Amino acid sequence: MGSSFGTLFRVTTWGESHGSSVGVVVDGCPPRLSLCEEDIQKELDRRRPGQSSIVTQRRESDTVRILSGVLDGLTLGTPIAMEVPNEDARPRDYEELREKYRPSHADFTYDRKYGIRAWMGGGRASARETIGRVAGGAVARKWLAERFGVEIVAWVEKVHTQSVDVDPSTVTREQVESTPIRCPDPQAAERFIQRVEEARKNGDSVGGIVGCVVRNCPAGWGDPVFDKLEADLAKAMLSLPACKGFEVGSGFAGTDLTGLQHNDVFRSKDRRVYTPTNRSGGIQGGISNGMPIVFRVAFKPTATVLRPQDTVDVRGDETTLQGRGRHDPCVLPRAVPIVEAMAALVLADHALIQLAVEASAPHPTEAAWTP
Amino acid sequence: MGSSFGTLFRVTTWGESHGSSVGVVVDGCPPRLSLCEEDIQKELDRRRPGQSSIVTQRRESDTVRILSGVLDGLTLGTPIAMEVPNEDARPRDYEELREKYRPSHADFTYDRKYGIRAWMGGGRASARETIGRVAGGAVARKWLAERFGVEIVAWVEKVHTQSVDVDPSTVTREQVESTPIRCPDPQAAERFIQRVEEARKNGDSVGGIVGCVVRNCPAGWGDPVFDKLEADLAKAMLSLPACKGFEVGSGFAGTDLTGLQHNDVFRSKDRRVYTPTNRSGGIQGGISNGMPIVFRVAFKPTATVLRPQDTVDVRGDETTLQGRGRHDPCVLPRAVPIVEAMAALVLADHALIQLAVEASAPHPTEAAWTP
Amino acid sequence: MGSSFGTLFRVTTWGESHGSSVGVVVDGCPPRLSLCEEDIQKELDRRRPGQSSIVTQRRESDTVRILSGVLDGLTLGTPIAMEVPNEDARPRDYEELREKYRPSHADFTYDRKYGIRAWMGGGRASARETIGRVAGGAVARKWLAERFGVEIVAWVEKVHTQSVDVDPSTVTREQVESTPIRCPDPQAAERFIQRVEEARKNGDSVGGIVGCVVRNCPAGWGDPVFDKLEADLAKAMLSLPACKGFEVGSGFAGTDLTGLQHNDVFRSKDRRVYTPTNRSGGIQGGISNGMPIVFRVAFKPTATVLRPQDTVDVRGDETTLQGRGRHDPCVLPRAVPIVEAMAALVLADHALIQLAVEASAPHPTEAAWTP
Amino acid sequence: MGSSFGTLFRVTTWGESHGSSVGVVVDGCPPRLSLCEEDIQKELDRRRPGQSSIVTQRRESDTVRILSGVLDGLTLGTPIAMEVPNEDARPRDYEELREKYRPSHADFTYDRKYGIRAWMGGGRASARETIGRVAGGAVARKWLAERFGVEIVAWVEKVHTQSVDVDPSTVTREQVESTPIRCPDPQAAERFIQRVEEARKNGDSVGGIVGCVVRNCPAGWGDPVFDKLEADLAKAMLSLPACKGFEVGSGFAGTDLTGLQHNDVFRSKDRRVYTPTNRSGGIQGGISNGMPIVFRVAFKPTATVLRPQDTVDVRGDETTLQGRGRHDPCVLPRAVPIVEAMAALVLADHALIQLAVEASAPHPTEAAWTP
Repeated sequence: MGSSFGTLFRVTTWGESHGSSVGVVVDGCPPRLSLCEEDIQKELDRRRPGQSSIVTQRRESDTVRILSGVLDGLTLGTPIAMEVPNEDARPRDYEELREKYRPSHADFTYDRKYGIRAWMGGGRASARETIGRVAGGAVARKWLAERFGVEIVAWVEKVHTQSVDVDPSTVTREQVESTPIRCPDPQAAERFIQRVEEARKNGDSVGGIVGCVVRNCPAGWGDPVFDKLEADLAKAMLSLPACKGFEVGSGFAGTDLTGLQHNDVFRSKDRRVYTPTNRSGGIQGGISNGMPIVFRVAFKPTATVLRPQDTVDVRGDETTLQGRGRHDPCVLPRAVPIVEAMAALVLADHALIQLAVEASAPHPTEAAWTP
Repeated sequence: MGSSFGTLFRVTTWGESHGSSVGVVVDGCPPRLSLCEEDIQKELDRRRPGQSSIVTQRRESDTVRILSGVLDGLTLGTPIAMEVPNEDARPRDYEELREKYRPSHADFTYDRKYGIRAWMGGGRASARETIGRVAGGAVARKWLAERFGVEIVAWVEKVHTQSVDVDPSTVTREQVESTPIRCPDPQAAERFIQRVEEARKNGDSVGGIVGCVVRNCPAGWGDPVFDKLEADLAKAMLSLPACKGFEVGSGFAGTDLTGLQHNDVFRSKDRRVYTPTNRSGGIQGGISNGMPIVFRVAFKPTATVLRPQDTVDVRGDETTLQGRGRHDPCVLPRAVPIVEAMAALVLADHALIQLAVEASAPHPTEAAWTP
Repeated sequence: MGSSFGTLFRVTTWGESHGSSVGVVVDGCPPRLSLCEEDIQKELDRRRPGQSSIVTQRRESDTVRILSGVLDGLTLGTPIAMEVPNEDARPRDYEELREKYRPSHADFTYDRKYGIRAWMGGGRASARETIGRVAGGAVARKWLAERFGVEIVAWVEKVHTQSVDVDPSTVTREQVESTPIRCPDPQAAERFIQRVEEARKNGDSVGGIVGCVVRNCPAGWGDPVFDKLEADLAKAMLSLPACKGFEVGSGFAGTDLTGLQHNDVFRSKDRRVYTPTNRSGGIQGGISNGMPIVFRVAFKPTATVLRPQDTVDVRGDETTLQGRGRHDPCVLPRAVPIVEAMAALVLADHALIQLAVEASAPHPTEAAWTP
Repeated sequence: MGSSFGTLFRVTTWGESHGSSVGVVVDGCPPRLSLCEEDIQKELDRRRPGQSSIVTQRRESDTVRILSGVLDGLTLGTPIAMEVPNEDARPRDYEELREKYRPSHADFTYDRKYGIRAWMGGGRASARETIGRVAGGAVARKWLAERFGVEIVAWVEKVHTQSVDVDPSTVTREQVESTPIRCPDPQAAERFIQRVEEARKNGDSVGGIVGCVVRNCPAGWGDPVFDKLEADLAKAMLSLPACKGFEVGSGFAGTDLTGLQHNDVFRSKDRRVYTPTNRSGGIQGGISNGMPIVFRVAFKPTATVLRPQDTVDVRGDETTLQGRGRHDPCVLPRAVPIVEAMAALVLADHALIQLAVEASAPHPTEAAWTP
């Protein structure tokens, strides 16, 4: 259970790191969207290993194949299945893991839950599972861009103790992609990369924070009560490996303000309503208000470290595990496209629901707030 | 849409502040659980207005009635419907709101979404909706306690800029309930209350942070991938009114550590596996590991303030709104039972799923890690 | 579990015959639909006991109250909760049932499933549960009629061994309502009523078949694969108490034809495509084709009979049960509004989904088949 | 939407006849089930084309590959993805279909729904989609057999106007498989085959009825109200291509009986409760009662016929379509394993839910009705 996400725009991912391939089924994608493998591949290339010196050197081309749902370059409205073969499994690297639980990994909990686990590389807990998310998110993102002009940009804004301020209203994907760590500020990027390099040399790892903005999202997306837009975004982000926190708008720091300081007053210009400040993060009462949606996601330092650690074995005896092999000293640069993909999946789902609401009872045309 | 939560243990809430009542249907509650209205009422009493001088003075007894699903004090396994009448609606307080959008409330976004809104008191965005959550959560919590011995304790650990450290492994509900602000530390509680009183005198408001721990949760609850335990907790919390952030275990602060510092090494004692540290917050790979589940939730300062604020009216013209009436200068003490209720709902759902998994393929009895 | 139905237009029913009330929560109803209690009551009056001499004389006014989701006569888009009190429970009639299982009722299976059961009147298996369905269906039907002009008409076409042919393209609700047995043909109605009276005098019961047509349903509703329109209709009908069969279009009798005889050839007139025959029953490949949707539903004879029957008690000992009290010698006339309500729920759900599909990728305007 | 089925044991199918492959993702399969490709292949071989002279001669080996979810021959509890390549697409056979709608097929309705369709062979409406169902059902069936001893046997009991009585309590899969038409009665099989051959020679087609029994199903599976066991079976069957009707137990013919004739009285032997008759079809109030579950499914004659038929083209102009190529003159023998697969999927889902219910509140051990 739990491998599906979304109501009307729904993805189901499958695949473990040790198996022959990983993939995704996208159900509910609108028909007649222009779609080809290159649309997916360009997002996968931002996620794949080996793209720069600061990520894992595992060799995987991560080449996607569309198996269904597209005819003559157009989506059919039926499920789009996509598959990416596993090329570089190296199970011999994992022999020790058959017997020992890696600290702060999911080996122990999978065994507790299922009484069995894919000890060769983490199974479903492996970051390879996110390939399906990025592939599905690429479809969602393309539709959101073409149908509504929605832009989604994420970036790295903190690595270990180093951080930088990024302006969500102006940051571009080009700026983000211009540094290998995916920080739009070149000076900060250097500081970040230095931290990653230090960690790598020590066989250690670092975490950090990814920021994300969604621009041009129409007002009205999101449901009141349980399926609030920020609630679904929070679930989407906390479902990512290594994620430990989520905040929207003013977030945790907003608790330092009083209500009078925190409230976003409304203004209007040419009958268009806006808020000069955006501590709400573009969402009020669970529903988008037309301002940029802004949120931040915390990722812990990678659990895989290349140093000996105390642990227990499958019999419950204490032992020591020597980390080895290739690893990501910092997941942040590869997390950027994954965060964007998850945001796209949440938004596409709510966009479809809101299209149904609006078409079910066309808005009164005289309403002043109609754009 | 969006008024249901959960898969096997599912609640559906209904009701607006202006209507005759609010309520909840709990579907999937296990049969033969001893349950009476007093079990529900005691949790509702912790949430209701007027319980102390630092919360809203709106007068509501919030008396619950069980309408179905219980026979002779035992649950039947069929839906438990519960209703709480609205007593103190005072629609005259709201006349101005028919025309003007309150800043940082959901008035504007509801109008954008639906083309109509319950202008008398916020409708579904009113905190009265959480009555259904607390009532449903009381059922979940009782079952979790009786079936598994699960304990859920939340507390206020920050109000405005004041904060305190609380030890999640020892904090008790009695300590929490001993102060009106629901902070287990009496000195900190005084500081917190002072901030709330200051805000109240200024017609202003403050926010803060609620901490929560779940103890005695068996290992194995939670699903890999999208329905990770922390993902569902994050969704549950971000679905609460005024919530702006969620973090589990080491959270945002965990990004300041390296992997070697952050990892929770495993130890065992009498064949029982544990981690001396708990930066994972009791969850690894989306699945509980048997350690206490620890998380924190940020609430913004209440949007209702008793001071004039700039805004726009329903025609999009700029205007001024004079806040009036009764309000909560700080939602935190009343948020405590709501956070606990949402945690109980998430856990009860995953508990049922895991019962199915375990019964579907009984664990090998010889496994060393069996408790 | 299992008390909710629908994806975007979703109902959740609650309540047992012995409790204080029964009810429903309708989530996902479009906003700004004109709705009042009388809209619901008129459908409930067609379902309620005591409306004529051929149905149960149990005395219940079945008066509905709308608890939420409506403001000033318009729906808000938020959950509509509706409640109907139980007035005539007479638990003393049921004392024997505490110990003995009624044949062909759900007493035995509920005990097996839950280890407990509402022995006073059948609990959730009581036909009173369908009050919530009829109330929810009344909302769906009103929206379908106002938004699309959809008409739903059901009728009794067989009672015991007596039957009649009804033309689905012309039958009206007025004709159906003109006889107490809800058969649009007055002569057949007399034959049907005679069979019911005979059964009643013998303390026996009879079943029969309800036919139903949906007219003016646009083409394009329904999903391929698992959520085919006929699949959801079949589920809706088989979820009704006493239902034993469902067929659409040519149904079981269609197996007597060859493909050449059975196929519905297409014709067009004024660029409007239609099929002169309708053995498809208005659905092809799971999707409505614009022709009337026609289906039939079989109901077994009422299991409650006023004669002694062999059975077992809760200890598994063989015994005899003397049926007593009031009962419906034939559920068919009261099943008519319930069948219509379930059809309305299925259609409203698929209508909303199709509105999302159409708005997600506006159809090419040049298409010849655009209406 | 609509390509997923089930709650805890859930399948998601993908793929069109024209694409590179079809497949399924099975989520929620219990862990540690022994599973290999041969377990799946043997069921697919019963469904595949070309297996005998009376089914389509399309050449497809339908060889399955398990892509995930299995390690060393055991399931992991995580999604099992399976893929079957399309080998014999022959798109040139379909050129005429780019422009013309086949009568009683889904071409017209797909165009209406999506504004686009996979004209080369029916897309998702192609019977190739059922490969995923059979593969998923093979997994469900294996688990049901090993965990509970559940047996599922389906057979052909009517072809065109010819029919036969089959005893559901004794029929075996071996008997069914002993004739190419999958009728356990050899004489009837000959009559059936003759009808199919006649139809084939005429370029015509015939339909019929499949019967199915589930034996050794424990009492207690199925939910009251909307997710009744018979309701989910009805949905499962009506979701199959060409299905027009479903009945359980006494079905439509049961309406000829009175209540006293129809009721299944209870008896007990050695404290085991049973019903000497089984007009309930093994289900009472939506929940299995421990007797064999018996149902029947009607399939219309195949819509593809090799004769000219009137129709319209995509512009709405009337025209004639000459059927050509290979086709199934009768789907019934290939429908048998598909019906069994769908039954297995429904039962596995309800089995898991009931395992959760039972484990949530262990049944009182003293209960007399405990087997």
